[in-house]
Amino acid sequence: MGLREAVLAKAKAAKRTTRVLGTLSTEQKNEALLKMADALWRNRDAIFAANGEDVKEARESGVSEARIDRLALTEKRLREMMEGLRQIAGLEDPVGESLETIRRPNGLLIEKVRVPFGVIAMVYESRPNVTVDAAGLALKTGNAVVLRGGKEALKSNIALVEALQDGLKQTAVPLDALQLIDCTERESVDILIRAKDLVDLAIPRGGAGLIQRVMENSLVPVIETGVGNCHVYVDAEADYEMATKIILNAKTQRPSVCNAMETMLVHEQAAKKWLPNMIYLLQERGVEVRGCTKTQELAKACGCLNLPLAAEEDYATEYLDLVLAVKVVSDVEEAIAHIERFGTRHSEAIVTGNQVTADKFLREVDAAAVYHNASTRFTDGFEFGFGAEIGISTQKLHARGPMGLRELTSYKYIIKGQGQIRG
Amino acid sequence: MGLREAVLAKAKAAKRTTRVLGTLSTEQKNEALLKMADALWRNRDAIFAANGEDVKEARESGVSEARIDRLALTEKRLREMMEGLRQIAGLEDPVGESLETIRRPNGLLIEKVRVPFGVIAMVYESRPNVTVDAAGLALKTGNAVVLRGGKEALKSNIALVEALQDGLKQTAVPLDALQLIDCTERESVDILIRAKDLVDLAIPRGGAGLIQRVMENSLVPVIETGVGNCHVYVDAEADYEMATKIILNAKTQRPSVCNAMETMLVHEQAAKKWLPNMIYLLQERGVEVRGCTKTQELAKACGCLNLPLAAEEDYATEYLDLVLAVKVVSDVEEAIAHIERFGTRHSEAIVTGNQVTADKFLREVDAAAVYHNASTRFTDGFEFGFGAEIGISTQKLHARGPMGLRELTSYKYIIKGQGQIRG
Repeated sequence: MGLREAVLAKAKAAKRTTRVLGTLSTEQKNEALLKMADALWRNRDAIFAANGEDVKEARESGVSEARIDRLALTEKRLREMMEGLRQIAGLEDPVGESLETIRRPNGLLIEKVRVPFGVIAMVYESRPNVTVDAAGLALKTGNAVVLRGGKEALKSNIALVEALQDGLKQTAVPLDALQLIDCTERESVDILIRAKDLVDLAIPRGGAGLIQRVMENSLVPVIETGVGNCHVYVDAEADYEMATKIILNAKTQRPSVCNAMETMLVHEQAAKKWLPNMIYLLQERGVEVRGCTKTQELAKACGCLNLPLAAEEDYATEYLDLVLAVKVVSDVEEAIAHIERFGTRHSEAIVTGNQVTADKFLREVDAAAVYHNASTRFTDGFEFGFGAEIGISTQKLHARGPMGLRELTSYKYIIKGQGQIRG
Repeated sequence: MGLREAVLAKAKAAKRTTRVLGTLSTEQKNEALLKMADALWRNRDAIFAANGEDVKEARESGVSEARIDRLALTEKRLREMMEGLRQIAGLEDPVGESLETIRRPNGLLIEKVRVPFGVIAMVYESRPNVTVDAAGLALKTGNAVVLRGGKEALKSNIALVEALQDGLKQTAVPLDALQLIDCTERESVDILIRAKDLVDLAIPRGGAGLIQRVMENSLVPVIETGVGNCHVYVDAEADYEMATKIILNAKTQRPSVCNAMETMLVHEQAAKKWLPNMIYLLQERGVEVRGCTKTQELAKACGCLNLPLAAEEDYATEYLDLVLAVKVVSDVEEAIAHIERFGTRHSEAIVTGNQVTADKFLREVDAAAVYHNASTRFTDGFEFGFGAEIGISTQKLHARGPMGLRELTSYKYIIKGQGQIRG
């Protein structure tokens, strides 16, 4: 069987389960989730053995230690995955929820009801926990899922999916609802995301390159996730103590994630009073600060002589690291315009005590999440109280910001008549 | 200026207006809609003159009379467009609606609020009324719109957009919010739908070829509209009088539209009692009936000797014409399986008096609209009570079925804090 046939066979097998999946009860799905968690533990030896081989091969082929860390499974990580599945079992089931009822003058009763998408294709990189996460979230929402993880994690993913399917054996869930593309050819991704009649939705999770590739080649609807060039604007009327706390949190608490701050915008009045000390505190925590000429001047006056100049490119960069671009702006208008130009519509924050300024910022900034007096780090399905997260959408179609269970569903209209025809 | 620069300049101009558009009040938008309607009337001479040229050129280049009919403007049609704009002014404004409020234990207040998409690209064919419709729907929802109509309607569209912009002159709406790609090169479509940073959503409206082209080439999110290979299943326990009415309505009331029935599925018991007479009634109304071998036999026994055989291809075809494929099935299960195989997830109906059978069909059939005892012809924004329609989505992402004003909006999360940081 060729690559194309092999990939399509898996998508077809997944598709065939969708009718059954859509009619499972919440209890049946929850039972399957708990059994999947148990099966991970039961099959742990096989999982760790497979993961050990993946790690060994990755190390031999010179993969960076950061990526190997993402790849490696420990007992703690396995337990976290199991706990994740059990938590998903505890969440409310969105499928079947009645979203709206319309009664028409002609007697037709139109009900808008949440339904699963059908088949979701997940394309991701080296973290094997995404395999378990995606399987759990898809199952709870009545979706079949075709997984295509990173090639370094292939053996781990095969072992994990075998374990999860082992868990499904005594449940109402068909084993074919969970599919893994177990080849490493890059074309397998393209075949999957172009299978228009088989796949209802593709979700890429990973670096910008992966997301770009999926966006460009897909023929099925895609939810774009991830890139976050996030800003915090510190206004003239900010509570500077609050601003300091928020800036340190947004930049340093976990710099490698998409909701971390990449550029700080500072009102010129705030810059004079507060910026030099803020720069000092950032540098003290290991942050490399790059600034506009005004930032450089203020820093120089306070003894920091060699602050690098932030170029255009800095403002456009998602560092995902302990690096921060700083720009002094003359007002909130300039801050909003800067965000409009360089932002990626992810998370943007203002720190100010002025409600009018705050309202203008919240209204006019185009982003999934806009914050007043809080850190951008809260853009997250768990922090929003969704109980789960499949990713953070940076597009505007269907889902924006953190995507939980509800965002993995579509809807249909069920119309009940007594013989109505159109006149 | 090259084609690419010309198209991108228009998209950029539209993009620049989005911040203002998003903050307009409902009153400001409604005033603009009414003034746009007035301006169509004020500029009617220019509009009819331009349209006359389009019609003349189309006729000279051998365009079919059906397409010329879609292209030609009359005073009645102009008045309908004006009335359409005034109706949109009367509809509820979805922008700013609070969809959900989440209060977190840490004190964060998260509000999910409806917002415009930003810039919508509309790609359509020869009907000039889509120009006015799309402009009105986009404006009411706070979106800028870049229109790319069919080349036969170019002069008409230029005149219509000039008239609409004339109407905007004394309003709060920036003229640049309404853009028309006034060239006929097909590449202009590709440039528009690949302008990822400028266009937030593309909506193709027209034939299967146009939709396919947009889906394949777009880099921006697309809502797929249109193709409807719709079925009505007449069960053994149907009220045959009701079934007859529904079948005639679904096939003959307006066969050229996407929600018309293309294949009738009949339970074998219903087939024996009711099908021959139904075929007679359909043929009497000019419908060409093509059937499976069982349909042929039943027809033959009643004197209809030459009923053509329905091939595989017939079941896969959206005729949009007075042609109907018929298939006798052994039960609702076979009907659902047939729809799963050949349906386009648009509109599907069952006629039965058995509630259990009906519920199975409504639950298991995967389509935007599933009907019990009613005609498929009701899948329409006006019939659903939305007051407007930009198209009918056949995909599952974001909007499914008829799309009204709400479906032209996205949302954002507004988060209010008192200095919260993530621990």
